[in-house]
Amino acid sequence: MQASVTSGSTRTARSRRSARSTSTARGGIDLGGTKIEAVVVDSRNQVIGSSRQPTPTTGGPEAVAGQIVRAMTEAAEGAKLGPSRLHGVGVGSPGIIDVSTGAVSSARNLPDWEGSYELGAVLSEQLGTPVFVGNDVQVATDAEFKLGAGKPYKSLLGVFWGTGVGGGIILDGKPWLGRGGAGEIGHMVVKIDGARCPCGRRGCLEAYAGRGAMEARARRRVEKGHKTELFKLMEERGRTRLTSAVWARAVKHGDKLAVELIDNAVRALGAGIASAVNLLDVEAVVIGGGLGVRFGAPFAGRISKAMHPHLFHDESPPDVRVASLGDLGGAIGAALLARQARS
Amino acid sequence: MQASVTSGSTRTARSRRSARSTSTARGGIDLGGTKIEAVVVDSRNQVIGSSRQPTPTTGGPEAVAGQIVRAMTEAAEGAKLGPSRLHGVGVGSPGIIDVSTGAVSSARNLPDWEGSYELGAVLSEQLGTPVFVGNDVQVATDAEFKLGAGKPYKSLLGVFWGTGVGGGIILDGKPWLGRGGAGEIGHMVVKIDGARCPCGRRGCLEAYAGRGAMEARARRRVEKGHKTELFKLMEERGRTRLTSAVWARAVKHGDKLAVELIDNAVRALGAGIASAVNLLDVEAVVIGGGLGVRFGAPFAGRISKAMHPHLFHDESPPDVRVASLGDLGGAIGAALLARQARS
Repeated sequence: MQASVTSGSTRTARSRRSARSTSTARGGIDLGGTKIEAVVVDSRNQVIGSSRQPTPTTGGPEAVAGQIVRAMTEAAEGAKLGPSRLHGVGVGSPGIIDVSTGAVSSARNLPDWEGSYELGAVLSEQLGTPVFVGNDVQVATDAEFKLGAGKPYKSLLGVFWGTGVGGGIILDGKPWLGRGGAGEIGHMVVKIDGARCPCGRRGCLEAYAGRGAMEARARRRVEKGHKTELFKLMEERGRTRLTSAVWARAVKHGDKLAVELIDNAVRALGAGIASAVNLLDVEAVVIGGGLGVRFGAPFAGRISKAMHPHLFHDESPPDVRVASLGDLGGAIGAALLARQARS
Repeated sequence: MQASVTSGSTRTARSRRSARSTSTARGGIDLGGTKIEAVVVDSRNQVIGSSRQPTPTTGGPEAVAGQIVRAMTEAAEGAKLGPSRLHGVGVGSPGIIDVSTGAVSSARNLPDWEGSYELGAVLSEQLGTPVFVGNDVQVATDAEFKLGAGKPYKSLLGVFWGTGVGGGIILDGKPWLGRGGAGEIGHMVVKIDGARCPCGRRGCLEAYAGRGAMEARARRRVEKGHKTELFKLMEERGRTRLTSAVWARAVKHGDKLAVELIDNAVRALGAGIASAVNLLDVEAVVIGGGLGVRFGAPFAGRISKAMHPHLFHDESPPDVRVASLGDLGGAIGAALLARQARS
């Protein structure tokens, strides 16, 4: 995080020289801990090609960059283009982004990515088009604001409820990034001396609502002899993790442990989001992420209800909506970054 | 709170007609639940006259308006001016401010002030100069940002630790008001299912750190047989409330109950302010209010330390400073509102 951070993205000197864009199509990459989502969009932000690849679990940043190139090339082929003909590619990445160089550091969800890696420059070289790197959650928030559920509003909070709980902020029509590290709604404290969070701290919202934290809790409960269908459903689906689909199915079946943990998650989301709204008084909250999109409108309603007892101005609650761009929102948002590419 | 809220203040049509300013001095009023603080400042915002009056406990808004006029007249006399010669007067008020009319409603700390009262228009008529009404906490935050401890920063959070816990937000050099109700840091949830707050909700920061809530807790403890010097010190000072001075004295004496409650307050402030910083990533936190100013730098240090375990970006904590304008900050900030008066 640097004081020089002023916008969500940049492009490198190298990428500028190699730009030979001959179409108005842009590429977008959503770089996640488990999968890489690539899209090609046209000038109206409609998806005209896409690809999904697993995120490599070994090989470090180089392997991840190689897989991004594969995903982007495949998505471009789907749009009947070579990647070098794209009018720029945007990448939404976890970790700390240095937007002046396109470098990404401390991306702890990615393999062996503790140090800094010149992701933007490497991708630009390999793809033959300018590459812009931005924060994954902010990019997804921008997408919902400009193209999705946030379109009617000038101020909103994006809450991405998945493995972790991420947040993005739009104020007065513009992203608010702080000194580069704003939006950590998942690490707002909802319970002093509360549960241990995967981040190591105590009582964070994510300690109750993050899929990672919930899975760890479910595993501990099973070790203590609690009964649950969760892991049976996981195995039936050939998974090694409790995915959003597994949680949704278990809750639908009325699995007691799943219902309890999801209820706690909703209560924590209610308190944490209400705290953020008490501070910022935004017009709307857009709920996205794996669990947010999977559970959909009924749970947005439940979260809204759980916020209510904590809202200071409860006579004027914000609208609570589900992210409307779905799983591709992050990648479509990343493609928005590439609108900065010069013609 | 109205959608039309766009800035911190306004002036009424009536006040415009009655403007006959013949000096560059401006007036500022800090309207509090226990006292009314009035200042006159020169063009360099230096205080050249001041007055403090108790807030009437009966008589409703009319009595309060009358007392404001008395305080302002006395402060103007101190500056060797009649109030009508002031180049506008600003008022920082609790409650919900309609900045398009200068009306104040739901000012629950003030006597019989549940409905709406045309405070700006009434004062303008009686003082013979334009009157601008803004939110008390935001006005005090602006003052610290423009003239006080917040001067070096472009983004900050003002935290006013007194009877309640109020907050004001400056982002990118400008106040952030949301839909008119932003900054309620005192009602961020620090403990789900936690202590009852004076606002009626549960687990708010103010339930642990507000002087009102702490006094109520101390009284309940005494009823249960706990020993404390707090109420003896209060009586010695001829007070009926546990003032900031009483708390400070009791803590200095090592009074066990006082130390425990203040320790809890510091922990809650640490968690709540860290949550706000995790969300907004501001450069600085300015601690003001009766307790904040009374406890001063050593406690700003303690609050900063209590924030640390909860800060997501703990490698780059915000600066934590004590409000430097002291008790008159609210009134000086209110006088800034009057800079909008036309010459």
